[in-house]
Amino acid sequence: MKAEAAFSQLGRRTTEPPISWLMKMTLDRPQLISLAAGFTDDVSLPVGTTGGLVKSILSDRSLARRSLQYGATGGDPKLRRMTAERLRCLDGAAEDDPVYSADRLLITHGSQQLLYLLTEALCDPGDIVLVEDPTYFVYLGILQSHGVGCRGIRMTERGLDVAHLERVLEELKSAGSLARVKMLYLVSYFQNPSGITTSYQAKADALRVLRKFERLAGHPIYLLEDAAYRELRFAGDPVPSALAIEGAAERVLYAGTFSKPFATGIRVGYGMLPKPLLDLVLRVKGNHDFGTAHFLQQILVRALETKTYDAHLEKLCRRYRRKATAMMKAIREHFPAEVKWREPRGGLYVWAQLPRSVRTGTGSRMFQRALARDVLYVPGELCYGSDASRRPDRSAMRLSFGGASEEEIWRGIARLGEVLRKLKKK
Amino acid sequence: MKAEAAFSQLGRRTTEPPISWLMKMTLDRPQLISLAAGFTDDVSLPVGTTGGLVKSILSDRSLARRSLQYGATGGDPKLRRMTAERLRCLDGAAEDDPVYSADRLLITHGSQQLLYLLTEALCDPGDIVLVEDPTYFVYLGILQSHGVGCRGIRMTERGLDVAHLERVLEELKSAGSLARVKMLYLVSYFQNPSGITTSYQAKADALRVLRKFERLAGHPIYLLEDAAYRELRFAGDPVPSALAIEGAAERVLYAGTFSKPFATGIRVGYGMLPKPLLDLVLRVKGNHDFGTAHFLQQILVRALETKTYDAHLEKLCRRYRRKATAMMKAIREHFPAEVKWREPRGGLYVWAQLPRSVRTGTGSRMFQRALARDVLYVPGELCYGSDASRRPDRSAMRLSFGGASEEEIWRGIARLGEVLRKLKKK
Repeated sequence: MKAEAAFSQLGRRTTEPPISWLMKMTLDRPQLISLAAGFTDDVSLPVGTTGGLVKSILSDRSLARRSLQYGATGGDPKLRRMTAERLRCLDGAAEDDPVYSADRLLITHGSQQLLYLLTEALCDPGDIVLVEDPTYFVYLGILQSHGVGCRGIRMTERGLDVAHLERVLEELKSAGSLARVKMLYLVSYFQNPSGITTSYQAKADALRVLRKFERLAGHPIYLLEDAAYRELRFAGDPVPSALAIEGAAERVLYAGTFSKPFATGIRVGYGMLPKPLLDLVLRVKGNHDFGTAHFLQQILVRALETKTYDAHLEKLCRRYRRKATAMMKAIREHFPAEVKWREPRGGLYVWAQLPRSVRTGTGSRMFQRALARDVLYVPGELCYGSDASRRPDRSAMRLSFGGASEEEIWRGIARLGEVLRKLKKK
Repeated sequence: MKAEAAFSQLGRRTTEPPISWLMKMTLDRPQLISLAAGFTDDVSLPVGTTGGLVKSILSDRSLARRSLQYGATGGDPKLRRMTAERLRCLDGAAEDDPVYSADRLLITHGSQQLLYLLTEALCDPGDIVLVEDPTYFVYLGILQSHGVGCRGIRMTERGLDVAHLERVLEELKSAGSLARVKMLYLVSYFQNPSGITTSYQAKADALRVLRKFERLAGHPIYLLEDAAYRELRFAGDPVPSALAIEGAAERVLYAGTFSKPFATGIRVGYGMLPKPLLDLVLRVKGNHDFGTAHFLQQILVRALETKTYDAHLEKLCRRYRRKATAMMKAIREHFPAEVKWREPRGGLYVWAQLPRSVRTGTGSRMFQRALARDVLYVPGELCYGSDASRRPDRSAMRLSFGGASEEEIWRGIARLGEVLRKLKKK
């Protein structure tokens, strides 16, 4: 009797997410230079800082007990307040701006959990989510498992191509599919995988376009802003989030995280949501786990209130800038001139577009030879939704400078360059 | 434009889980004596122990960094090995018993997450899960949100009434509904809410009965054993889990947790599953969060290997025995003789059945007057699935001795007794 015969529809649709495979490969082969997984920098992890924070939490008996006990489903009230306030400051909003009320914020087990909860809460099989071309591949896996289709929206150097967004929505309107469109998923800061930051203006324009089509859709079309890399900025000016846009309170779903800026082993993310949706997501989270591990939340509270979080972040950004610089130098040195890429200003990634003749997928000679030389990257084509009207870039690679050391970055890029030059000669 | 218009089917079905409300009420009203929420004992939380464990993790630089970094989706390999080995010992199985292979085990964000993942992976709207009458109410919420129906199975003093299970399956067969039956959900140790432990024999019999109906169902019908309270045993003999039954490897889904025995603020649960289902659940978890917070897992590894976990557990069980004794004494003293209840041998709960004339629901005079006197309990009727063929006990209450102090237990039960006597007089 086949186990599969008992699987649900979701079970049947849920295929292996590429990230599990890539992460596992990194963990299992210590000699591998991984420019693939979105691991953060090992050496700069806040070991001493965390020790100090935990010690101070546990030396206050009442706080210690609270931190080792269950909390509320939506998260620790103090952490919610501090997070909401932090967002308000990042956006330069007025102190009494109700958009940044802690009542609109919930704490999650990483921001990934929020992406999952929102998709569950909003999307049925057959619904449509608009995504960037390319986009965060794990989110594509979530959509696929829920039977949700996606339409890719082109990107420019300034981020989302709003004119293309409008064209796609017009097409969906003509096809009578607007009612199925639930949201636009936007990785707005130092995008995973392209590194591009979408400008504030483009976000405002996108929100306006979404609203224009809402009446025909018959329901709100949300802008889900995934700001996972926002705080990992090491060049350029800060950009306010979509929460700062007029009318955002009812339409912007903001997903943020403390894990990547602080420590990925301490999974704490958060969301800022319109009230009716927040209430729903809290109910769904009640079923998932009735609340994110309270101990981790208290570590973050302490890190924020002692400013050790900010001190760590500053150090981390300096470190990532150095590593990004090392990667750029290596690329300039080792990659053929026709490879297209852009200087990262934050985040963890460089998106390199090889000559069209070179494929980068897992089955390609490029990927296999790189792997044979112990270098791993994320094939660009994994970052595209299955949208028949769009063509994925099959010659791109996502290169992460997060986990690898400067020396590994140099060696890894050098090897990729060698493989690439040899392939081109043929 | 109504936000609700964009909600998914799951979103529309997901109503407020009673536990959120009860937990929130406990957190918000410090003067309240809560005999309701499944909080564990505050005073005995392992504050010093956790401090020591964290210190030792962080003083080993390589381990420290690993603990603050992402891990694999299925959990830390060492924790998986130790957990599988622990289960094997608890069940008294042979060293080479493949049922207890670490390859069949995954780590989750509390065992609640596993219940959710399994339900997602196996159940479509319209499917049926068999549950005990009464059962863990949060699980009923998960079923409801997925549009899954349930059929209640009667309980005896020895746990699940297997004859009744067989009768219900016969009925489902007659109705042509067997193909919709995906599993039997069994809270097998010191059940939440009844406190009853299902005997090993009853579990073996239940598994046999399930298998008998499988051919007609056309797929496996799993036995989901929720062993959340297993380690919180303070009287009676240990009972092996359903994993020890012949053929269990392919049919038993075992859900366990380290949170309740150690610290609920450190959310680490686990599951032991048949391989095809494990693979699927890992994929779904990849979408949820690609792995439980690694830092918490390392704390558990350290607690298990230094045996501080076991030392803590022993102390905890002694403490719960004392608190259970305090509750029993208070009940004998303050409740009318016709209240039916049984001595707990583990877990956190006493299930008290009041005279039929006294209702206990949230709208009842009993509940409201108890609340007015600052005492909270879980109304028994919340613990029944919506199965038209079964009648919930509307006069029961779940009383927890987990969170309250002995003195609070005494006062709380005394007040409940007073309210009850007054109501009976009328």
